[in-house]
Parts: sequence; C-alpha cells; structure tokens
Amino acid sequence: MELLKQKILKDGRNLGKGILKVDRFINHQVDPRLMDACGQEFARIFHDTPAEKILTAEISGIAPALMTGNYLNLPVVYARKTKPVTMPSDVYITVAPSHTKGHNTELIVSPEYLGKEEKILIIDDFLASGATIAGLIRLIEVAGAEVVGIGTLIEKTFEGGRVLLSKFNVPIHSLVSISSMENGKIEFTDEFEV
Amino acid sequence: MELLKQKILKDGRNLGKGILKVDRFINHQVDPRLMDACGQEFARIFHDTPAEKILTAEISGIAPALMTGNYLNLPVVYARKTKPVTMPSDVYITVAPSHTKGHNTELIVSPEYLGKEEKILIIDDFLASGATIAGLIRLIEVAGAEVVGIGTLIEKTFEGGRVLLSKFNVPIHSLVSISSMENGKIEFTDEFEV
Repeated sequence: MELLKQKILKDGRNLGKGILKVDRFINHQVDPRLMDACGQEFARIFHDTPAEKILTAEISGIAPALMTGNYLNLPVVYARKTKPVTMPSDVYITVAPSHTKGHNTELIVSPEYLGKEEKILIIDDFLASGATIAGLIRLIEVAGAEVVGIGTLIEKTFEGGRVLLSKFNVPIHSLVSISSMENGKIEFTDEFEV
Repeated sequence: MELLKQKILKDGRNLGKGILKVDRFINHQVDPRLMDACGQEFARIFHDTPAEKILTAEISGIAPALMTGNYLNLPVVYARKTKPVTMPSDVYITVAPSHTKGHNTELIVSPEYLGKEEKILIIDDFLASGATIAGLIRLIEVAGAEVVGIGTLIEKTFEGGRVLLSKFNVPIHSLVSISSMENGKIEFTDEFEV
C-alpha cells in the first residue's frame, strides 16, 4: 500500500535491532485518515472472507482494527493485557513473548465476546515474530471459534512470523512488507503484495 | 445522543458502586459504527474550536478520539500508561488515581507530540471523577500547550468531574449524562445536553 509505505519513509525511524519507530502515525500519535485508508484497504482484501468479528490486541492494533470494522460493519474485540474489574472471573488467557518489550505479555479475552464457532478476522499493526498473533489464535481456538484471515499493517519479513503462522493455513496479508532494516535502512519487498 | 443512550440501556450493565459495564460496545468489544457516529457528533460540537490536535488516554479513549480525529482531520495522541522502547528518555509524565482500578495510573506523552502553544481537544470515554482528564490537562500545561475543549462519551454527573474541571474554563460536552446509578438503575439527565 503506497500511502503507508510513503508515510513510513517520511515519518518512520529505524532505531536498530529491527525496531521501527512508527509512533508519529500509528502507536502514540495516530493519523486517523491514514488508519481509515488502511481499514478501507483491509476491507477490500477481506470482503470475501466469512468473518463475523475482528480480533486485535491492545493497544496499537485498535486503530486499524476499528477502521476495518467500520468498513466491514463487524464488531471489534481487543484482547486486554490486564483484566479490568468489569470482566468476569473466568476468562480466556494466554501469554505471548514480546521481543520489543523484552518480557511476556498476557492476552485476555472475555468468553462473552468470543463465541463458539464464530469466524474471526485478526487485524494488528505489526507482523514480526508472529508471537502476538499466534497468541490471539490460541485464544480463538480455546474459545472454539475459527480464524479465517490475518491482516497486518507492516510485516517485517526477516523475523519469521509468516512461517510461524503458515501452519494455520489462513490468508495472511500485510499492507507493507519490510525485508531488511540492516545498516539503518528500510527496504521494502512486494513479494507478498495483494 | 439518543443512539448512545439506547445502546447503554440495551447493552450496558450497572455493576453497582457506580461502575457501568460498557465492554460490549466501548472498551473490550467495540462497535465501530457507533464510535463513528460518536466521532461525527463530537466533530459537530467542536468544529468551531481552534483545536489542532486531539489528546486522549489509552486504552478506551482511543476509539472515540480516533473517529473524532477522522471527521475533524486532526492527529490523535494517546497518553501511554507505560513507556515503550520507542519513546525518548525525557517525557511528560503525571499520575492519575483510577477509582475503578483502585490504584494510580501513569500518563505519559512524548514531547515530540505535544508542542508548545498547540491547541488541544481532549476526547475520552468517561467523565467520572475527572481525575484522568485533569491528568491530561496537567500534561498539556507542562508542555506549554492549551486545552480548548473536553468531550466525553458518558458523564456520571454524580461523581463530580465537571466541578473539578470547571476551573479550566473550557467547554465540556458529554454525549450522554447519567445522573444516578442507585438501586441497580441507570438514570439519565439532559441538564448538560448540547
């Protein structure tokens, strides 16, 4: 998606060690019109899937998931990282390692909002190691629901997430794929472009 | 706002002690079309203010703030509760007590995204005690920026937030005001309606 690629080149920063700083337009300051355009693009890509609900992880998945849900007219559920007082005692919970954060993160969904046999589209900001998305899929499976597609804004192809997730045998689409962040550069690939 | 009021009556739950469970449509499962309608309504209310940016607090303020920003074509910044690796060492930080969570929460904004003399519109999900919004205003003031308006989805008028925030002398608008949650009921008031 050219618009997102140009935004990354203009406002993203390669901090080294594979860390891409996108907090000028995705995960601290957010560009709502860009997120709207990304949601529209995900809706175009996934309009044929039988998705009944979108699942994402707080916090930075919320913006693209919400915009996609607005276009597809689907409810969005975001997995919580801490359990609020309004959540029932019995919840679906899993643990996903976060290599950018350097520790494990809990992903929690209330059984009220992840139903047996529901068809789920996952939308998130990054596909890197795939650990967070694999965690979301574990929650979907334990709920007896079914993942029907995965969409992410930015894939870092050199971190192996696509390989990890390939065993689930569902379509995986990223709006932008980065093949290398060596030597302070950001190199894109269109290998997986839709 | 009738649409939001009807949604609260249909899908909200009074858990007692002033806690309103809205995680079916705002803060766990999100209704994107409802949030879009709320954003449109905030845009109508605040289109005359000189706002250059929207500030909210993660997590549940993000959806209404994003939709408002989409209509007003303004960037949205959400104050983080933990400092990510992509944030610089020197940040604006304050502490706000959360009575529903029963502990203090940090609110952190990078100086990159809150500029001197910038005019800021605050959008959040709840106006209850006003503690979170007062925290956001402290961040705005320490950055040398200026708050020009406050909009919240749901005000609980019996928790005193409007009185606390009145000293800042900016327009405060809530899409729905709840005057009482006694005896398991949810009573609305149109006293502050726009």
